[in-house]
Amino acid sequence: MIDKKTDSEKVVIGVDIGGTNTAIGIVNYKNELLLENSFLTKADEGIDAFIRRLTKKIKEAFGRYEATHVLEGIGVAAPSANYLNGIIESPANLKWGDVNFIEMMKKNFDVPIALINDANAAALGEQKFGSAKGMNNFIVLTLGTGLGTGIVVNGHLLYGENGFAGEIGHTIIEKDGRQCNCGRRGCLETYVSATGIKRTVFNFLSKYNDQSELRRLNFENVTGKQISEFALQNDQIALKAFNYTGEILGRALANIVTYFDPQAIILSGGLVDSDELLLNPTLKYFDEFLLNVYKGKVQILKSNLQNGEAAVLGACSFAREEIFENILNII
Amino acid sequence: MIDKKTDSEKVVIGVDIGGTNTAIGIVNYKNELLLENSFLTKADEGIDAFIRRLTKKIKEAFGRYEATHVLEGIGVAAPSANYLNGIIESPANLKWGDVNFIEMMKKNFDVPIALINDANAAALGEQKFGSAKGMNNFIVLTLGTGLGTGIVVNGHLLYGENGFAGEIGHTIIEKDGRQCNCGRRGCLETYVSATGIKRTVFNFLSKYNDQSELRRLNFENVTGKQISEFALQNDQIALKAFNYTGEILGRALANIVTYFDPQAIILSGGLVDSDELLLNPTLKYFDEFLLNVYKGKVQILKSNLQNGEAAVLGACSFAREEIFENILNII
Repeated sequence: MIDKKTDSEKVVIGVDIGGTNTAIGIVNYKNELLLENSFLTKADEGIDAFIRRLTKKIKEAFGRYEATHVLEGIGVAAPSANYLNGIIESPANLKWGDVNFIEMMKKNFDVPIALINDANAAALGEQKFGSAKGMNNFIVLTLGTGLGTGIVVNGHLLYGENGFAGEIGHTIIEKDGRQCNCGRRGCLETYVSATGIKRTVFNFLSKYNDQSELRRLNFENVTGKQISEFALQNDQIALKAFNYTGEILGRALANIVTYFDPQAIILSGGLVDSDELLLNPTLKYFDEFLLNVYKGKVQILKSNLQNGEAAVLGACSFAREEIFENILNII
Repeated sequence: MIDKKTDSEKVVIGVDIGGTNTAIGIVNYKNELLLENSFLTKADEGIDAFIRRLTKKIKEAFGRYEATHVLEGIGVAAPSANYLNGIIESPANLKWGDVNFIEMMKKNFDVPIALINDANAAALGEQKFGSAKGMNNFIVLTLGTGLGTGIVVNGHLLYGENGFAGEIGHTIIEKDGRQCNCGRRGCLETYVSATGIKRTVFNFLSKYNDQSELRRLNFENVTGKQISEFALQNDQIALKAFNYTGEILGRALANIVTYFDPQAIILSGGLVDSDELLLNPTLKYFDEFLLNVYKGKVQILKSNLQNGEAAVLGACSFAREEIFENILNII
């Protein structure tokens, strides 16, 4: 099937499954993003319902290109995804238990499907198209519903022994700290993520007496984006929450450096996009907490890719590599 | 000179510079340790005095073998050593500032000299001769005056961008915590090391009313070894200090796993040798704090090499590799 069309008509679809939204992109052989859209993940409806909706969305998206293009494969980025076995393993923010994702998707598609951890996909995206171009030692932090990390060492993604390296969002930074979806307490992502800053806001509403529009909102509905908007309007609770989040993130980044001695740490996700609200306090505390020997050697960068693009591009790129390697293996 | 003797007569000298003691070993071509001894580092006397004493000790040690053996090279393991430039960079527990160690040693010896971080040397030693034989993904923690870490990823030592990966002893685990020699506060090694447990003992002497022989000792003189001995005699302050140290170490190990997903973490150093005093609470808290996805997948092991041997053997092995590579480069 593939041979009938020329290279220029080959596309790959990338999917990035997030705790809140799922993004789909179509990438051509020039690595141009032809189309990107997203839909609500609604993980609480269960994995079967999600696979049905995802299948429909992918078919709708590719429908526009079907007459002129050929689909080479699908790359799927998801939290807690293990590329070694194709399983999404008990994702803390999706509550699906262990899901044999590739098996399930193969019932609906007859092209190769590759599964990759979402933050690893973001790291590949940054390395090939974004802020980490040309770098061999860097770490990407994705701040969404949770906090994901993709680690590149000597030019290659760090998978670890079982494919689960880089769950830095689940380092315990506070003994008996905030309850985490993983069943433990005090994980980094309960402080540094869209959900984390919301928890900080509600803690600060109880702690401080500042007037704040945030006092009119309920916990379930308030979003990271709203907190950013209030902070930009000089809301003191929102600003204090960004400062507190930046302090914890700055210290966490200083700690990450002691493990990897990287060239750069790249921050991405909605919470980072909001002007320099998070970046400024993060940089301040990072400098304060950084061990002397690393001073002046590590860049803290905001991703220069649009929100969500890195993981979608990375998933496509990963799928292409997997397809290419399998073909080579067959030969 | 080397060509005049047979392979069987070639030896390498390994040196491990610690905050308290410095060990010297002579290793033959079969990787057998012919001799090992140690002397007090006395870092406060300055680097020049130390180099003089080290030179004398090496010459004394090799003196016994000089007639029958040839010295191929010297491998030196030291804290904060950077193999990329041969410099010991501002070691926190030695207070020497930046020391161009290889340059200084070359004035006294006409064989190749290789410098390696002490915990990296220990990791090489464990990989080739010790508890990590055959492993590709593991981390070695050396608990001495400070806490060193050697990280092996995909079979190779992790150096990072500037040669300074693996300073996990300087991750900040407690904001505004104990003052560290690095100039910051709350570093892991201020809690988990021979010095760390001593600090804990003195804190607990103030906190608890238990009778304890430790109340008769002063801060400057008490050693990790004494604390172990008191704990084995059921001294409650010493036992509480081991439990507290194990809790912090167990949590730190659980956090390390979220970064690297290793096969094993290997603990070495005097503090770990004392029966299971530290290992038991460490394992208990490690299990408690470990993220579900890693359960049953990571071993916590005590080094099966004698105290100090891992770094000396690793330094020798590193020196041999360096010499071998340089010869190849020359050809």
